[in-house]
Amino acid sequence: MILAPKKAIVLLSGGLDSTTVLAIAQSQAYQCYTLSFDYGQRHRAELQTAATIAAAAGVVEHRIIAIDLASLGGSALTDETIAVPAADPDNQQIPITYVPARNTVFLSLALAWAEVIEARHIFIGVNAVDYSGYPDCRPDYIAAYERMANLGTRLGAEGKPLHIHTPLANKSKAEIIRLGLELGVDYAQTVSCYQANANGEACGGCDSCYLRRQGFEQAKLSDPTRYNKAPKKS
Amino acid sequence: MILAPKKAIVLLSGGLDSTTVLAIAQSQAYQCYTLSFDYGQRHRAELQTAATIAAAAGVVEHRIIAIDLASLGGSALTDETIAVPAADPDNQQIPITYVPARNTVFLSLALAWAEVIEARHIFIGVNAVDYSGYPDCRPDYIAAYERMANLGTRLGAEGKPLHIHTPLANKSKAEIIRLGLELGVDYAQTVSCYQANANGEACGGCDSCYLRRQGFEQAKLSDPTRYNKAPKKS
Repeated sequence: MILAPKKAIVLLSGGLDSTTVLAIAQSQAYQCYTLSFDYGQRHRAELQTAATIAAAAGVVEHRIIAIDLASLGGSALTDETIAVPAADPDNQQIPITYVPARNTVFLSLALAWAEVIEARHIFIGVNAVDYSGYPDCRPDYIAAYERMANLGTRLGAEGKPLHIHTPLANKSKAEIIRLGLELGVDYAQTVSCYQANANGEACGGCDSCYLRRQGFEQAKLSDPTRYNKAPKKS
Repeated sequence: MILAPKKAIVLLSGGLDSTTVLAIAQSQAYQCYTLSFDYGQRHRAELQTAATIAAAAGVVEHRIIAIDLASLGGSALTDETIAVPAADPDNQQIPITYVPARNTVFLSLALAWAEVIEARHIFIGVNAVDYSGYPDCRPDYIAAYERMANLGTRLGAEGKPLHIHTPLANKSKAEIIRLGLELGVDYAQTVSCYQANANGEACGGCDSCYLRRQGFEQAKLSDPTRYNKAPKKS
């Protein structure tokens, strides 16, 4: 018996996490459709990075959906008047880099595409360990999202439940990097920085750079990240 | 003691239902922020209609967010190559006018705006009686959405739960119209048709026109809808 291929939509930002997720989905024989968002983020280099990674991975289709989150404001990632703060590992608050309801918006558009192409799998690289305090990365949020999605869609109504896969949920950054390397991910291609320049070079100082650099250090691997200046040691 | 005003985001399409919802929210003393979506719908007259209604109602702010659902396809409302079917009251299937995950996408953007302005109330005109068979209009879907939203947002994480109000959920179209008239709604201004022309004149034949006309008939009220030709009797 030959099984029908399983279609999956993979949210791909071009960063370390989502690129690893794409490699995981492909290693599990999913036919991958990648989705990026042009949401007015200041780190726009990630859009080109994501397209390059999707092409290199040979995905079935890569899409960029434009959505005007910047006009709503409220985040350092989309509002040029709010500075991206330096990494602060001791911060217990939701940081200003949180984009209001971002994962909810992104998953909703993935869901719309999933309905059109009849994909029953969505992969997202949320992480409950190094999650920067974002509420929309928590496992109970993802479970609630999946439940809502199955109640509110044609697929769900027709008894074809949709699954949201979060293969990084319980992994440390170091574990994610080791797994990605096993799967052949070239992390030099990926861009995680919240304020990467147009060449995709990282600032070395933001929360995302901090978590990424710490991951390579804890994995005892050399960091291939392209910085626009020499990073401080963490 | 003077209570702080309650901010509410009202999803406003410019149709009969959402215009009535706006009137209900205002009658309950909410400070209303209205939100429309330019999602590639063929009935684009509704965008101008919504802006006109919002201005007439004196809302705090009216926004139109552009979002490219049309590029995903899959619906007669956004794909010019799929004809809007004539009304079929006996149809038990989800109709082709269903836009994949539309309410999930719309509510997600309302949620993003709610986080930015710290509104804890979102009003949406879904209806479980005359709901055209859309899965994303069912009460259990809305309840699941609210739960997800409170897990995935800063507001929820900070113990400021968000409520999704569906004041039309259990009303017939005739009941909605009677209530709206009591609240002063001018239904001649509203546009419900799935393929209204540029002047906002209705086709008279689609599912949405059918339900609307039937509502006026059952309420024993004259129908102020502007048709682009004389409608057939239902």
